[in-house]
Amino acid sequence: MQMKEFMRRASVRPFLKKARFGLERESQRVTLQGELAKTDHPSILGNREFHPYIQTDFSETQVEMITPVADTAKEMLRFLAAIQDVTMRSLPKEEMLWPLSMPPALPEKEEDIIIAKLDKFEDVLYRRYLAKEYGKRKQMVSGIHFNFEFADGLVRQLFNEQTAISSFDQFKTEIYMKVSRNFLRYRWLVTYLYGASPVSEARYFENEPKPEEPVRSIRSSKYGYTNHEDVTVSYESLETYVQNIAEMIETGKLSEEKEFYAPLRLRGGKKMSELATHGIRYIELRSIDVNPFERLGISEEQIQFLHIFMLYLLWTEEKHSADEWVAIGDLLNNQVALENPLEQTELLEEGEVLFAEMLAMLEELELTEEAELIRTLQKQLTSPEDTLSGQLLKESQASSQKKVAVAFAQNYYQEAHERPYQLAGFREMELSTQILFFDAIQKGISVTVLDEMDQFLKLQHKEHVEYVKNANMTSKDSYVVPLMMENKTVTKKILAEAGFRVPKGAEFANMEEAQRAYPEFAKTAFVVKPKSTNYGLGISIFKEGASKEDYQTALEIAFAEDTEVLLEEFLPGTEYRFFVLDGKVRAILLRVPANVVGDGERTVEALVAEKNQDPLRGTHHRSPLELIQLGTLEKLMLKEQGLTVDSIPENNQVVYLRENSNISTGGDSIDVTETFTDAYKKIAVDAVEALGAKISGIDLIIPDQTIDPTKEANAYGIIEANFNPAMHMHIYPYQGTGRRLTMDVLHLLYPEVV
Amino acid sequence: MQMKEFMRRASVRPFLKKARFGLERESQRVTLQGELAKTDHPSILGNREFHPYIQTDFSETQVEMITPVADTAKEMLRFLAAIQDVTMRSLPKEEMLWPLSMPPALPEKEEDIIIAKLDKFEDVLYRRYLAKEYGKRKQMVSGIHFNFEFADGLVRQLFNEQTAISSFDQFKTEIYMKVSRNFLRYRWLVTYLYGASPVSEARYFENEPKPEEPVRSIRSSKYGYTNHEDVTVSYESLETYVQNIAEMIETGKLSEEKEFYAPLRLRGGKKMSELATHGIRYIELRSIDVNPFERLGISEEQIQFLHIFMLYLLWTEEKHSADEWVAIGDLLNNQVALENPLEQTELLEEGEVLFAEMLAMLEELELTEEAELIRTLQKQLTSPEDTLSGQLLKESQASSQKKVAVAFAQNYYQEAHERPYQLAGFREMELSTQILFFDAIQKGISVTVLDEMDQFLKLQHKEHVEYVKNANMTSKDSYVVPLMMENKTVTKKILAEAGFRVPKGAEFANMEEAQRAYPEFAKTAFVVKPKSTNYGLGISIFKEGASKEDYQTALEIAFAEDTEVLLEEFLPGTEYRFFVLDGKVRAILLRVPANVVGDGERTVEALVAEKNQDPLRGTHHRSPLELIQLGTLEKLMLKEQGLTVDSIPENNQVVYLRENSNISTGGDSIDVTETFTDAYKKIAVDAVEALGAKISGIDLIIPDQTIDPTKEANAYGIIEANFNPAMHMHIYPYQGTGRRLTMDVLHLLYPEVV
Repeated sequence: MQMKEFMRRASVRPFLKKARFGLERESQRVTLQGELAKTDHPSILGNREFHPYIQTDFSETQVEMITPVADTAKEMLRFLAAIQDVTMRSLPKEEMLWPLSMPPALPEKEEDIIIAKLDKFEDVLYRRYLAKEYGKRKQMVSGIHFNFEFADGLVRQLFNEQTAISSFDQFKTEIYMKVSRNFLRYRWLVTYLYGASPVSEARYFENEPKPEEPVRSIRSSKYGYTNHEDVTVSYESLETYVQNIAEMIETGKLSEEKEFYAPLRLRGGKKMSELATHGIRYIELRSIDVNPFERLGISEEQIQFLHIFMLYLLWTEEKHSADEWVAIGDLLNNQVALENPLEQTELLEEGEVLFAEMLAMLEELELTEEAELIRTLQKQLTSPEDTLSGQLLKESQASSQKKVAVAFAQNYYQEAHERPYQLAGFREMELSTQILFFDAIQKGISVTVLDEMDQFLKLQHKEHVEYVKNANMTSKDSYVVPLMMENKTVTKKILAEAGFRVPKGAEFANMEEAQRAYPEFAKTAFVVKPKSTNYGLGISIFKEGASKEDYQTALEIAFAEDTEVLLEEFLPGTEYRFFVLDGKVRAILLRVPANVVGDGERTVEALVAEKNQDPLRGTHHRSPLELIQLGTLEKLMLKEQGLTVDSIPENNQVVYLRENSNISTGGDSIDVTETFTDAYKKIAVDAVEALGAKISGIDLIIPDQTIDPTKEANAYGIIEANFNPAMHMHIYPYQGTGRRLTMDVLHLLYPEVV
Repeated sequence: MQMKEFMRRASVRPFLKKARFGLERESQRVTLQGELAKTDHPSILGNREFHPYIQTDFSETQVEMITPVADTAKEMLRFLAAIQDVTMRSLPKEEMLWPLSMPPALPEKEEDIIIAKLDKFEDVLYRRYLAKEYGKRKQMVSGIHFNFEFADGLVRQLFNEQTAISSFDQFKTEIYMKVSRNFLRYRWLVTYLYGASPVSEARYFENEPKPEEPVRSIRSSKYGYTNHEDVTVSYESLETYVQNIAEMIETGKLSEEKEFYAPLRLRGGKKMSELATHGIRYIELRSIDVNPFERLGISEEQIQFLHIFMLYLLWTEEKHSADEWVAIGDLLNNQVALENPLEQTELLEEGEVLFAEMLAMLEELELTEEAELIRTLQKQLTSPEDTLSGQLLKESQASSQKKVAVAFAQNYYQEAHERPYQLAGFREMELSTQILFFDAIQKGISVTVLDEMDQFLKLQHKEHVEYVKNANMTSKDSYVVPLMMENKTVTKKILAEAGFRVPKGAEFANMEEAQRAYPEFAKTAFVVKPKSTNYGLGISIFKEGASKEDYQTALEIAFAEDTEVLLEEFLPGTEYRFFVLDGKVRAILLRVPANVVGDGERTVEALVAEKNQDPLRGTHHRSPLELIQLGTLEKLMLKEQGLTVDSIPENNQVVYLRENSNISTGGDSIDVTETFTDAYKKIAVDAVEALGAKISGIDLIIPDQTIDPTKEANAYGIIEANFNPAMHMHIYPYQGTGRRLTMDVLHLLYPEVV
């Protein structure tokens, strides 16, 4: 094929950089001191029988994290970041992930290496077979499997440019066969750059031969986890590949296809049989060591390089017959893998050619953005100390590889636990959505982000699909329910008719009508407010009646904001948010205006600064609490109390910095779920039911919660019901117990899973 | 009781004008010529077994319209207007409502007066008994029953002011007993002012005695529809009232309570037995004739007067013992009823006293707004020709009462049919809501307007409550569905994944990224648009690719509107709106931009003026079509075609006045439901199902509807799915068959009724 020519064509160009990516990362669980964990795989991580993201590989301690397929490397890595975040925060507090391909020191007795405790007996049986065939220790190594697929558009455009092959599937297979053989031939370069297993820890090797000196990659060398020598598969064609593996299985040299530990596997789908029917759909690169310098075990740059490398392998022609070509590659890879990481490679010359040709290709294809990266890597050919294995070895020489690994792992551990309410990779989403996303990953419910800025998720378990927006808008509520809640008049009418106490009131469309109502309200406690802006502008409160003049002024202010104005009974008392889900009060929250408590020593400013140290406080609703500001409004509030930011409040003096209790303006959230009697909870539940809602945050004014509301009609009043109630403030309150409401949402949607 | 004093108290004042109202209006169905109808009660009006609004009284031709209880007269009357509108438009085209209390000419044979064909045999039996006891002819008279209740607040404040009676219910009963006796004593004034049955039509009277001269009110006189003389009930107390009626029934003088044809009934609830347990809850005034000068048979002014009259009857003290007081009233009422309508009443003096006292009361209570009305009515005491009976008689003398009645009836008929898409009383609501409201009344589903400006209705049939907003937002759709549709990206993703053809596209959050995509789109047909404003500003269409400069400009325009920009494949073809409800395509609409068709004679301006004559065209979305404008945009569009408003287009030349096909800018709606094959309908249905929606208007681009979409993948493309699709444009299209989608919505909500 004149591939270079085709790749240069204008029709092909726009698609060259398009591809699909997927990744699996294995990692051993260890204690914070770097000893292999002795615990079981955490049960909080749901059911391994179907978990799409978090599995165990050979041993019970070996977590495998699996990303969904993504259209960009960035997308794939952010999902890996999320999965790893969930994994790390789901481990016991005293466990972390080992950051190396080579396992930590292994138990003295092989029986203490525990085979993964899977439900399916055949899975356990297979692992027992592996243990017997290769020894348990060998299986404890970890790596990155990188799945790569050229974009369908690219293959299609290339296919359209040529005439030699008439079947698209056949053409695609040919393309991947070429890339695969070239990869096997040139993969030594990946081992050179990204090999990262120079030294093994205690008891990985027992009596078998092993490298005596540090190498670039034990894992990619003949000392790694490879098949027995009698397993040989030809990459001549897809047919030979499929047939050879079938023969190996038939003759018992392999127990099944997945025992074929090649550095590259051809993939047709989930099962090998699909290769025969559909041809090759993508390839799986298996020879990548875990990069300890990266939290995720691999960097975006590495993936960018691999992507360009794939394009180069498609671009460059093969120079020998298939089997010979692959055989040379195996030889060279083993050679490079066993070189000393800090010494120059024997293959420098071929390396220079490869880099030069890659750069030439990029220039010819006008992919100039990538050239910089290639030039940086090119330099590593002559500076082996900059390769991963070089760096790792150097750092280890200063102390020990174990110490380096533990330091890295602890660092990543720290990062993962720093802001437990956020989900790595998706920190721009609303907090409640991040937490629901976290919980879904944890329980093994598939998540697709349909629109990140719109907080729109698709969830799936088997055939069961659910769509969720803002973490609380689901198929379980009906279309009219939020519309009812959005309209305060409608909400009140429905609640009043159902027998709940709501502030009495009247609605006016003009000043004249409103004025006429004066005598009715004159001596009562009431609120004047524009109909549509709740808790916003234009509100006047009269706690002890109003003069005709004040009434008139209040109306004018309200009518300036809206064409309709509400007069409403003022209910005295404290406002509580009852979060109701599926007929149960799941949390009750008291919100307190931004405040500090004096100690008789420090200034208001210093007290605010100290309170803002709380890791739960942040900005822009990406933390459960907001930083307390010292702006105009806060200073005004201080002034009204005869204070300034430099005043020193007395010991235990509570200084409020805001009148409103919103969390968004620095207020405190206090969980008071346990302090309420069932009678109050029943009111909230029944009111939400009267509105027909499954999920709602309903605000009750309660003057005195010790009063029995079944006996005293005025014991409560319902202010409003919210159709998009913030959940995060209940999950991570300032004081009191957090309530994992997102898990309740998941249970509502997936009772079969959660 | 010192009622006057209590009513003057400040605590009572705000509540004086508060009350609750309800009304029943009877009317005979007649032909357009004024002959009694021979048809059955229209079956389209649903089931009389439960219909809350439209019933039949004694005969099959006698419609009874019943309003729900309302807090204001205005509210009650607008609902009556709606019910009457529905009734009139549900009759056969050649029928109308008779506008008089006295029936039209009755059949010669009594057997041709048909007793209402009710389902329940006991109801039929009762009417048969009445026919035998009073004669069928007497039963054919119609009237207004007016239910009146003082506001609970008023009665409560009065109760609080006094100490004599300790039970609130007892106090309330006393109040109504007083008002009732006073009403019976002074009701002659109502007969004087509002009596409107001066003359009977043919065969109402047969051989029995009858007035020989015109009178004020046959119906309210002894010649009206009254009980036999041996039926006497004392209003001394609630106990005597209840006991006397019970005795009458026991002794067979009455068959049941409802046969008690008093001018005023005490009401405790639906059944008389409730009187004994709860006391009086409201009173029913039954002596009001139908006012032929009013479309609804009664005016707001009449109700205002009756309201003040009720206050006066509470205010003024009784001057004799109960039975005597009532007996005098009966006598005086009969006397006034039988006076000549054009002559001065014998009771002028008492009348002057009553008006003077009413005015004095209004002044004392500072209800000055009402004084004007009272003064106007006061004048009628000395100008009997201005009373209803006076006016009617005078007008009848010029031709005949029948001719006058027919003219009125035809006039009201005309009004009801003028704008068949609107619902009287609720014309400010959105058109689709008006139509759904109409259909609900027609089928006997109770409607409560929860928020008029927000198009929020509560529907109820027995215990089954449904809330509906905008006539199409219901409990049948889930919360997430409209959120999915609102987000075009999410909609497209879901549809694409389900295998539907949607315009391919990409989303960009910055200029750089978007520029990089140029090669992919350069030579294709595509659209650049801001993400959130669909069909709004910032859209550029490239039907044959774009130069790099034009592409850049389009991006700049789009990014000026939003922070995210979509690039989307441009799908050529015609856009059709498929309205899908409950898994079926109910209507397909083609929208054509505002246009006129030339005739070779008239100017564009004249053609537009003529097209705007269509009664379906109006303004502000209160008509199914909008008036075509000749504004800046239209003139520009003409200019582009080398025309002005004064140009004379050739015969059959189609001149477009707009580029966009929106109905809101004068476009034509054309129903094309029948022209599509099932294959296209299935696509629409399946797509809506993929989105999980029950109700949606989904827009398909179809280049050629003769192409089989099951064979040709590009036969269609889905543009968007609408979660608030306008229904009225399908119901009253410019061309083609109207589709009663609102009835489909009702069927979805109430399969047990519709």
